[in-house]
Amino acid sequence: MSDESTTSESRVEYYQQRIARAQDLLKEAGIDWLLVGPSADLLYLGSYDAHGSERLNLLIVPAEGSPTYVVPTLEAPLVGTLGELAALATWDDHENPIELVKNVVGSLEGKKVAVGNQLWTAFLLRIQSALPGGTWTESVPLLRSLRMSKDELEYNELFEAARRTDEAWEEFIKAGPISGLTETQAMRRLADITEAHGVSKVWGICASGPNSASPHHHTGDRVIQTGDAVIFDWGGGFNHYNSDVTRTVHIGEPSEEFVTVYNTVRAANQATLEAVTPGAELQSLDRAARKVITDAGYGPYFIHRVGHGLGLEVHEEPYLVEGNTLPLQVGMVFSDEPGIYLEGRFGVRIEDSVICTPEGGKRLNEAIRDLVIME
Amino acid sequence: MSDESTTSESRVEYYQQRIARAQDLLKEAGIDWLLVGPSADLLYLGSYDAHGSERLNLLIVPAEGSPTYVVPTLEAPLVGTLGELAALATWDDHENPIELVKNVVGSLEGKKVAVGNQLWTAFLLRIQSALPGGTWTESVPLLRSLRMSKDELEYNELFEAARRTDEAWEEFIKAGPISGLTETQAMRRLADITEAHGVSKVWGICASGPNSASPHHHTGDRVIQTGDAVIFDWGGGFNHYNSDVTRTVHIGEPSEEFVTVYNTVRAANQATLEAVTPGAELQSLDRAARKVITDAGYGPYFIHRVGHGLGLEVHEEPYLVEGNTLPLQVGMVFSDEPGIYLEGRFGVRIEDSVICTPEGGKRLNEAIRDLVIME
Repeated sequence: MSDESTTSESRVEYYQQRIARAQDLLKEAGIDWLLVGPSADLLYLGSYDAHGSERLNLLIVPAEGSPTYVVPTLEAPLVGTLGELAALATWDDHENPIELVKNVVGSLEGKKVAVGNQLWTAFLLRIQSALPGGTWTESVPLLRSLRMSKDELEYNELFEAARRTDEAWEEFIKAGPISGLTETQAMRRLADITEAHGVSKVWGICASGPNSASPHHHTGDRVIQTGDAVIFDWGGGFNHYNSDVTRTVHIGEPSEEFVTVYNTVRAANQATLEAVTPGAELQSLDRAARKVITDAGYGPYFIHRVGHGLGLEVHEEPYLVEGNTLPLQVGMVFSDEPGIYLEGRFGVRIEDSVICTPEGGKRLNEAIRDLVIME
Repeated sequence: MSDESTTSESRVEYYQQRIARAQDLLKEAGIDWLLVGPSADLLYLGSYDAHGSERLNLLIVPAEGSPTYVVPTLEAPLVGTLGELAALATWDDHENPIELVKNVVGSLEGKKVAVGNQLWTAFLLRIQSALPGGTWTESVPLLRSLRMSKDELEYNELFEAARRTDEAWEEFIKAGPISGLTETQAMRRLADITEAHGVSKVWGICASGPNSASPHHHTGDRVIQTGDAVIFDWGGGFNHYNSDVTRTVHIGEPSEEFVTVYNTVRAANQATLEAVTPGAELQSLDRAARKVITDAGYGPYFIHRVGHGLGLEVHEEPYLVEGNTLPLQVGMVFSDEPGIYLEGRFGVRIEDSVICTPEGGKRLNEAIRDLVIME
């Protein structure tokens, strides 16, 4: 939800509804308290992009009643809308914030508490030690039912993030040769163009030549040269909602084998899209991609799941992986990113963002999927 | 420890010694296992800058014997030196990594386990549930005795990070007017210059005019103008060791009050430096700064601790705060950053990095501390 598109009042209401829905889920699950630190969950429920650090920030949501936000005094001026959603409990540097948590929740004896998955364990251990007797559980299985399916406002932000990232790609592939650049330099060029299109906090991986066979390669000083496959996997935020795109280009004429691998990955990407049907198990999407790649003889070289949810986080629920029997729901947005990785030689990955609609899968990304030859 | 300055063999030995020292501390404290996720602790013990995500990465260190590193298969090619320090236990996307943890530690019944402070609670809760019966404790009080006092190699990296950041500042203040720029644009200029000096992952806060009265201001679209105080608080890494510097400039001629506040903060910064003595309590440094500011009548406007440790993290132990009675040790490196914040008007902060030597405090930062007037 962008700051520009809404009045302050409707903004507060929008988030109040999210908190109320989370409280309904708490009651259904028999959970007494929800504790959320700096994370996408906090952004989702409280509209605040808190800085995670050694200073405790904690949203405390009771199953019934008003939330409290524990915040360092010096960060209190930054909370914005959250100040209208929760009572602020501020603490100074020489004070112990766990005392504030104690004041709010009282005793946890016999209580059930859900904790946001990214809270630092140091804080959990301190709270568990100061407030013994509770039963602790992860908040993700609870909150994912809210966060997985995007509403129209969220979808619009995701679509806009994807559209701008697509535009950046079209500009990048026309911006001149990349052979002779290091991976870092090429990635920097793409990141700068993406930022110029209004995408913020741009991150990215550029993996060239044999490095392209390592899916999570750390972009480095290798110089891109003729004969390389080069993978760009990048994205960024638009009003906190993320894009995540991968394209693989070839420098100069590719070998026949490269073209075969490229076309196989592209077909697997397409098969995943076509398998999107509300109600189907999420693992069926991974299977759809894997079947295409296995049938082509490259099964052992597709070494990761086919995708992950996309929203306030670049990786979030739902995960498109063997074993995930959760049904596809309308409004789910996720990546579709099969890949083939031939160690020591090259890799290919093609990644789009897809939304599940009542009629099936619809891509948010439309950047060219034909093989692009660059210099 | 830079990749360039050492052979691979001596590099492995250097980290093996760190792990051995951590194991000595475990034994002293009667702790059976140390679990460390992606964090500066992992970088410190295992030389690996792991990407924190929903995929479990976990270094498992027994009090005696060899460590194991649990890592997603697709990230295994990235671990570098860590592969020589620990046995790798890899897991594929469709597998449950907690099973690997179980294989390594067996039962935790009656065992004591220390956990790295930044591990996500989701992982802790899963491990606690799969391996019940253990007693859990924070690793920070244990590891800080290793990490707080820097050795010569670490000091050299920190000094180099500080020197390059200083050079960037001198270049920035000569690089032309900043009035008319937004905070974001001014910060971008400073960040680009800092990166050009070989500092990586540069971050920063630019807070102008009334925003300068908020110590953790989010850099934004406010246009810098004549009459503003402008705080720049920025830094970055050099071989993973961080710089962290703050300077406050004034756009055009300052008021008498601004000059008084500036000189008070500068005197407090100097008083902190002069109070550095091995063996003195860390809180005495906060008191030294606070006394100067309180005596000048600005006590209530110095709303944060005077400093924090600096090393592989920008904020780490030790914290220079009222209540911290830990003694200063030779080799400790920390920020010295008093500030005065007059809400709605302006703020001033001056921050250097300081090392505790046998003879007292020595600054790593020497960027100009005289009041700089910019256009």
